[in-house]
Amino acid sequence: MTYAIIGTGAIGGFYGARLAQSGKEVHFLLHSDYEFVRQHGLQVNSCEGNFHLPRPLIYNHVSAMPQVDVVIVALKSTNNHLLPQLLPPLLKPTTLVLLIQNGIGLEDDLLALMPGLHLAAGLAFICSAKTQPGVINHQFYGSINIGNFNAPTVAPLLADLADAGIKAREVDYLEARWRKAVWNMPFNGMTVALHTQTDRLLANPATERLIEAQMLEVIGAAQALGVTALTPAFAEKMMASTRAMVPYSPSMRLDYDFHRPMEIHYLYSRPIELARAAGFSMPLMQMLEAELRFLEAENLG
Amino acid sequence: MTYAIIGTGAIGGFYGARLAQSGKEVHFLLHSDYEFVRQHGLQVNSCEGNFHLPRPLIYNHVSAMPQVDVVIVALKSTNNHLLPQLLPPLLKPTTLVLLIQNGIGLEDDLLALMPGLHLAAGLAFICSAKTQPGVINHQFYGSINIGNFNAPTVAPLLADLADAGIKAREVDYLEARWRKAVWNMPFNGMTVALHTQTDRLLANPATERLIEAQMLEVIGAAQALGVTALTPAFAEKMMASTRAMVPYSPSMRLDYDFHRPMEIHYLYSRPIELARAAGFSMPLMQMLEAELRFLEAENLG
Repeated sequence: MTYAIIGTGAIGGFYGARLAQSGKEVHFLLHSDYEFVRQHGLQVNSCEGNFHLPRPLIYNHVSAMPQVDVVIVALKSTNNHLLPQLLPPLLKPTTLVLLIQNGIGLEDDLLALMPGLHLAAGLAFICSAKTQPGVINHQFYGSINIGNFNAPTVAPLLADLADAGIKAREVDYLEARWRKAVWNMPFNGMTVALHTQTDRLLANPATERLIEAQMLEVIGAAQALGVTALTPAFAEKMMASTRAMVPYSPSMRLDYDFHRPMEIHYLYSRPIELARAAGFSMPLMQMLEAELRFLEAENLG
Repeated sequence: MTYAIIGTGAIGGFYGARLAQSGKEVHFLLHSDYEFVRQHGLQVNSCEGNFHLPRPLIYNHVSAMPQVDVVIVALKSTNNHLLPQLLPPLLKPTTLVLLIQNGIGLEDDLLALMPGLHLAAGLAFICSAKTQPGVINHQFYGSINIGNFNAPTVAPLLADLADAGIKAREVDYLEARWRKAVWNMPFNGMTVALHTQTDRLLANPATERLIEAQMLEVIGAAQALGVTALTPAFAEKMMASTRAMVPYSPSMRLDYDFHRPMEIHYLYSRPIELARAAGFSMPLMQMLEAELRFLEAENLG
């Protein structure tokens, strides 16, 4: 299959480069890094082995790109309003659009804007950063779970990812999105609100209890929306695995520190809204959402 | 009546100085300001007229102080564990102890430590600051509501306060403490958590809604504890009156900024605990309490 990568950053750049390295035809959309990568290629420094793509297929505008079999969207969800302009040139009737983005409600909203799209969610478990133009640092992990939203199949994509040496498996769409939210909603927001990192939140007994209560609130919302496979035991598992992690600043904390817009809409507002519509109230997440909106206004204003 | 002031700061110093100026015998306990006030007296710069007490009755230890009719406690509640040492030398069997302190549960806890005490709550509505040793700046307001906890009467105290030109009236004890908590719990904590002031919290639509939700949560707790006179309409009134205020940093924000312990216990932990015992849960205040405990540990640690 042929691929387009929309958002050649730490995540899209990594998976795209691995697919290209394995011999797939991958078209990369670049923005600020275009000129650098045109001259120097794309470098991946990875815990699984460094590699370099000297002449990747790169573009600075979608109008020059071909139609492909799979579009991987790895933009920040704060830019999803651009997708109705970015996607059409890349689409055949059968094209699969994979959203490797955090949050809840992304596929519903995009399908409402672009009816007929074939969508899947990509839940990436990876520590990766673009520290300079054209250079991706892949620190650890790297697997990806694929949740099929409304596509006929995601099997060919899974096969290509396996070919590229990426651990990928198919999971239940809604359960996978909410499962990731159990970690994302507490830690992304709280590291911003208290200007700290995961380890310090867990070292203080008061915030440790709060984070767990927040996880249980997210699990409650998921259950209210029919994700019955997600139980309170998962909160304990996430607490334990985060305790075992190195001190970590989630992506929202980095966005805040670099004065970029934060993904408040899809990480907080939409899940809170969907839960409320199902009769489940999320007071802790609503408070965190309000704190983040305040901090963002002060940070960008 | 004769008076002792425990905690001659912005609040205790102001009311004590006004009582002394009106001719009452007032004994002031001082700590860091003792030597300065011994040499220079006590200066009150007040919006209602400046005055100076050249030779106030001052002490640096309670053992030298006489028994009095009224003890006014205006310490930070973080120091209330000292009261069983500080109070006994000042007490006759009939002495009234007035706690001019913020929070919920103060009188219950002190009575448990010192059975037989006659207690009342003083709810001060005043903007006052001690900006340098021996100098109190009284900016505006100044009235005080007295809620009788278990004393035979507070009438003589009200008469003396009126003599001193202080607007004072008797109010229902529990209702008065919770009424003040409706403002105190949201604004004290939120100005610390988001490192901001009252006006900015209300200028942002997200935090404006959150503050109102927090006020309604406090009112719900009060109602669960039997304070039926406190209704949701009071939240609207507090929102409106805070909008009309100049930008304001509540006392907890000042404590945080000056790296002093914050009054988390009586402003958050005790009311949350009392509400829970009455079957009412306060998730927004619990989250704020946890954030404050984290910030305090980082701030003092």
